[in-house]
Amino acid sequence: MTTDEQAVRAVIDRWLCSSAAADVDTMLTLLADDMVFIVPGQPPFGKEEFKAAWDGPMKGAKVVADADVEEVLVSGDFGCTRTRLAVQITTAEGETSRAKGYTLTLFRRQSDGRWLFARDANLLTPEG
Amino acid sequence: MTTDEQAVRAVIDRWLCSSAAADVDTMLTLLADDMVFIVPGQPPFGKEEFKAAWDGPMKGAKVVADADVEEVLVSGDFGCTRTRLAVQITTAEGETSRAKGYTLTLFRRQSDGRWLFARDANLLTPEG
Repeated sequence: MTTDEQAVRAVIDRWLCSSAAADVDTMLTLLADDMVFIVPGQPPFGKEEFKAAWDGPMKGAKVVADADVEEVLVSGDFGCTRTRLAVQITTAEGETSRAKGYTLTLFRRQSDGRWLFARDANLLTPEG
Repeated sequence: MTTDEQAVRAVIDRWLCSSAAADVDTMLTLLADDMVFIVPGQPPFGKEEFKAAWDGPMKGAKVVADADVEEVLVSGDFGCTRTRLAVQITTAEGETSRAKGYTLTLFRRQSDGRWLFARDANLLTPEG
């Protein structure tokens, strides 16, 4: 495994740990300023909308994720990952939802060497 | 627009033209050998499964696509595109279905300079 691949995997690990802890501030530090999230059925959205969700309906939510990073490809300042993911979200009100599927994510190396999430396609589907 | 971005957009144009013509042989030349398609609700699949679909249920299908390539990012040998897409598929049996949404796609420059589709996340949702 190259050091770039290790660095990208470390960002994913930090992401999973901070989302498990509902640590939005840390999550935000892992997103590029021009971050774009793409999910089915709604327009792409960015960092502000992500923060607003965690300040709103997701506030205090508990996220338990089981993630398998199936591949990390790197060229230049781009890293591309495919991750198999199962997520359980329990809101502060105690409602639990589950989803599973794949994400395809673009990471971009910044001028200071840090790797950040830049584009994320989330293809998870709800579980019964 | 850089020449790399132009080259990636040209591959997307060729893809759209060849899918409109149900020209599977040309489509296959635009896919990297290790191509991975990711769609919601099923495991990722590759070039063989893509070909099998066009040899089977998609045989003779007419695809009309309205595509807006919203961005092309390039670094090293990777190109990443976000495309807004509306697709209408009419099978040989005359059944029509429509879907719209976004794709996030990784293109990879080959050793001979060609850009090919390498990873594709398709987040389109069916339209009523």
